[in-house]
Amino acid sequence: MEASSVYFIEQNLLPFEFRIQESANYSQSCNAIRTMQVRGAGAIGAIAGFAMAQAFVEAKEKNEPSLAFNARLEIEATRPTARNLFFAVEKVFAAGLLSSEEAVAEALAIADKDAEDCRKIGEYGSSLIHDGFRIETHCNAGWLAFVDYGSALSPIYTAHEQGKHVFVYADETRPRSQGARLTAWELGHQGIPHTIIPDNAGAWLMSLGKVDLMIVGADRIAANGDTANKIGTFEKALAAKALGIPFYVAAPLSTFDLSCKTGKDIPIEERSQDEVLYAEGPDETGVIRKIRLASPGSGAFNPAFDVTPASLISGIITEKGIVEAGRID
Amino acid sequence: MEASSVYFIEQNLLPFEFRIQESANYSQSCNAIRTMQVRGAGAIGAIAGFAMAQAFVEAKEKNEPSLAFNARLEIEATRPTARNLFFAVEKVFAAGLLSSEEAVAEALAIADKDAEDCRKIGEYGSSLIHDGFRIETHCNAGWLAFVDYGSALSPIYTAHEQGKHVFVYADETRPRSQGARLTAWELGHQGIPHTIIPDNAGAWLMSLGKVDLMIVGADRIAANGDTANKIGTFEKALAAKALGIPFYVAAPLSTFDLSCKTGKDIPIEERSQDEVLYAEGPDETGVIRKIRLASPGSGAFNPAFDVTPASLISGIITEKGIVEAGRID
Repeated sequence: MEASSVYFIEQNLLPFEFRIQESANYSQSCNAIRTMQVRGAGAIGAIAGFAMAQAFVEAKEKNEPSLAFNARLEIEATRPTARNLFFAVEKVFAAGLLSSEEAVAEALAIADKDAEDCRKIGEYGSSLIHDGFRIETHCNAGWLAFVDYGSALSPIYTAHEQGKHVFVYADETRPRSQGARLTAWELGHQGIPHTIIPDNAGAWLMSLGKVDLMIVGADRIAANGDTANKIGTFEKALAAKALGIPFYVAAPLSTFDLSCKTGKDIPIEERSQDEVLYAEGPDETGVIRKIRLASPGSGAFNPAFDVTPASLISGIITEKGIVEAGRID
Repeated sequence: MEASSVYFIEQNLLPFEFRIQESANYSQSCNAIRTMQVRGAGAIGAIAGFAMAQAFVEAKEKNEPSLAFNARLEIEATRPTARNLFFAVEKVFAAGLLSSEEAVAEALAIADKDAEDCRKIGEYGSSLIHDGFRIETHCNAGWLAFVDYGSALSPIYTAHEQGKHVFVYADETRPRSQGARLTAWELGHQGIPHTIIPDNAGAWLMSLGKVDLMIVGADRIAANGDTANKIGTFEKALAAKALGIPFYVAAPLSTFDLSCKTGKDIPIEERSQDEVLYAEGPDETGVIRKIRLASPGSGAFNPAFDVTPASLISGIITEKGIVEAGRID
């Protein structure tokens, strides 16, 4: 954050173009969250905090105190499932009631803490990874999804730095392909051997004995340990349980929402059917094209998240250590 | 089949173009199977039978008896998992040893029987479908995949004709999207209400109580009932079992391979990684474009099938009735 501008990586262009984008006000920041230019639990939290701070700066400039209140509602409406968003907005809002400078300082502190939390998640989580491990992950919970390091990928990065040989199976993660696009891109940059698999191939790989461990991120964790994460996580957790593969969630404590007693209390975002029916990417000349994947005239159902019951989760890797799902209070 | 030509629906162009293609000889027929212009258990069986007959006709014309033997090896190498292919080739080969006319007659008989078997599968299977049922299916096992009616979709078509209200969730079925492209297209043509879901959403839908029944097809069924079908079937079966959803396989007896004692004996075809890394479809002007979906530099693993253990299958719908998985001998 610089003056009242926020700078972020435009994730919708990745992995085909790396561009730093500027958001000059809270409204542009909301749009960045809504359109998933910024996505991933920690990254959403960080920019939501900055958006809230931007609103306080703007409220002060325009001498319109109600602007910050309205902005809060607008920010909170962008991604209903993402716990880190509400966590950051609440903290920055409280600080902003003191002064807009306090709001900015709080937003910066949240972003810094997110990076530090993720670093610790890497340290704790790497203890689960032995030399030669083949690890499956779903969606993208790497440094793109956070301020740095990531949640699910952080233990893998730490294990790799410690000299352990790791191999990652990145679930493609339809419909938005965050696994094929973002996780594969991150792993390539970090020099970690990996391969993309269709989401459909997860259970089959596990049954062939090709997966030693599965780690995923989280968008919101209920008091009992039920975990909302990218659609398809639940299916992987069921497969891992049935096939005896350890299944871990990695998330900072800011992802926990003790006001949700169980997963049933977590609101699940539904997104546009066009994300399922169409796909975008470069053709052989590098021009980005949008193509129809599905039969014309047919529609699609597109829930963005699902809830994995705590009973399917081997443990949750946090910045305070690895805990049993449902044992945070 | 007409003279020595076979006519088929070019399935790779669907749902964006409907074109009948001609194969003038067995080598072209092999290519149609290999490139999945013809796909689906029964349809592969039918064209493989015709390909074998074409080879006998060609062998006779050229007076080269060994041609039929070599052709058999070539046909059998096109799709290693597909049981109906081997079933048809074996029968037509035996007939061809008598005369090329017998080979042609046998190939025609196999195609006719396939249609009749699928009609009966529809009759038996529709008894499982009650008015108002919401049925999930994976991949395409409709009339495109067979000579007519289909296997998994046949009971749905019959129930619909009987006046029962049905709603179908068509799994998209990455990487080749047969659900989004072919099943959705077939259902649209038959006037059956449906929606496409990302493969990742199956278990979540089941847990929300939105699925009453799941029916899938099969590419090969072992003696103990273990069933090879499109990749992702296993994961759905695990989810259905865990969530108490009846999970049925629909297949003619020609899909059973009693020489495979269990699923471990079924060879699983691995296809090109490009099917995962790229996608094709029309852009907004209707021009078919091929785009890259995944991070440049990353590869993919692409098993075409997986094996669902008999213990996860509620029953197998055949032309002789509904049987318990593993109770065919």
